Amino acid sequence: MSLKKYEDRVKKINSLVCVGLDPDFDKIPERFKNLDNPQFEFNKWIIDQTAGYTSAYKPNTAFYEARGEQGIAELKMTMDYINSNYPDIFTVCDAKRADIGNTNNGYAKFIFDYLGFDSITLHPYLGSEALKPFLDRKDKVSIILCRTSNSGAGEFQDLVADGQKVWEIVAGKVASKWNDNNNCMLVVGATYPEEMKKVRQLAPDVTFLVPGIGAQGGSVKEVMESGLDSNGQGLMINSARGIIFSDNPAEASKALRDEINQYR
Amino acid sequence: MSLKKYEDRVKKINSLVCVGLDPDFDKIPERFKNLDNPQFEFNKWIIDQTAGYTSAYKPNTAFYEARGEQGIAELKMTMDYINSNYPDIFTVCDAKRADIGNTNNGYAKFIFDYLGFDSITLHPYLGSEALKPFLDRKDKVSIILCRTSNSGAGEFQDLVADGQKVWEIVAGKVASKWNDNNNCMLVVGATYPEEMKKVRQLAPDVTFLVPGIGAQGGSVKEVMESGLDSNGQGLMINSARGIIFSDNPAEASKALRDEINQYR
Repeated sequence: MSLKKYEDRVKKINSLVCVGLDPDFDKIPERFKNLDNPQFEFNKWIIDQTAGYTSAYKPNTAFYEARGEQGIAELKMTMDYINSNYPDIFTVCDAKRADIGNTNNGYAKFIFDYLGFDSITLHPYLGSEALKPFLDRKDKVSIILCRTSNSGAGEFQDLVADGQKVWEIVAGKVASKWNDNNNCMLVVGATYPEEMKKVRQLAPDVTFLVPGIGAQGGSVKEVMESGLDSNGQGLMINSARGIIFSDNPAEASKALRDEINQYR
Repeated sequence: MSLKKYEDRVKKINSLVCVGLDPDFDKIPERFKNLDNPQFEFNKWIIDQTAGYTSAYKPNTAFYEARGEQGIAELKMTMDYINSNYPDIFTVCDAKRADIGNTNNGYAKFIFDYLGFDSITLHPYLGSEALKPFLDRKDKVSIILCRTSNSGAGEFQDLVADGQKVWEIVAGKVASKWNDNNNCMLVVGATYPEEMKKVRQLAPDVTFLVPGIGAQGGSVKEVMESGLDSNGQGLMINSARGIIFSDNPAEASKALRDEINQYR
């Protein structure tokens, strides 16, 4: 089962770090820009430096789609590189997809089978019936947006129905009903530690993907105090810009691992 | 302004039909499957037959992504073909995207600038602050999921907050707050005509993209009775399988146009 891949990796290298492979073309170092496959070459360089300290890689599809089919080809090269060279590192496709029923088969085929990802991020708005093509994949993990890290996240997520906010309802439903195959995770932003505490109560055994550390303002300490499960695990803490565009990605990923482990 | 492109087309050919270009590879006729660009060649054949009766084309990205970068290349060929040969037909990228803030720039660049679409479908869950890169594009249309056509749509959409269901709140917010640039539409499924009536009250001047006619069970008559605006317009009625996989796509698109016009 695929979530076990992440858990095994966490144990093996004692790291809850996820590196966001978001190679915004305008921001990658000049020396990569003239190569044949600039995003792939940049990713390869990042991966080789950070692999020792990371338990997951998370490319966001937007940065690849921005370059059309060439970007998709380089995303595929990136995934082939990770799966060949670091097959025990968990991979997240941060695609934030969700269509209805059979249409999702196209996305599942693309992301799980063609690109070879272990997991995908998904919008909950259409409900679990629509997401069956993802949820039924026992070999893959569905990561449902619960409380997102952006400043305007509350516009719909904070609506209160039957005494609970929408993000609480999402957390509860995913934990109690969607997770029959034990293959669901939740996205909970580092920028909302109080909400994260509540999500942990509602979904005690679910692993959280946590964006929002660093550039977005989330604090590692607060995340650790709010989100760890009863085993001192249950978190996948993402950093993208703070690692990939740092002067020394190896050091930056090691430093994040160590900062996280101070609080475990 | 891009929504005007749709309105002008509707007036010109007196049709509210949108043809869904969903070339599921397993279902396209055998004679296309061995060509170099099977999805594009199939689309080209459909487009040439249906263009006289349709005011919009709506490819769903899932069917293209299922074939990796080759599918994306054929989606680009399809868009180039429409924009070169039928430049007054409105185009919808049914991508159901939504990420946070600047990340959406990648999707906007891909879908609006690289592929050349007039509009995109978007999830509302992250709020309008997250969607600014789309909403700020005055030259393009953002089509927000409101009440989707799937049978399990109600799981979150029917939650009641402050006396209104979530889909009502989405409709109201989009109509009153998100639409400053007059460039928003709403997705309202044909399978929920009672809900559509309510959305029309909440968003009297907003155009609805209506999926769910035909194979999904929605009725043209009910949609027309529920969704027309006070000018006898405000609808974009999508049919995919019922047209593209029919024996005679030209006849099928003409028949849908005529059925719709019976009720206008």
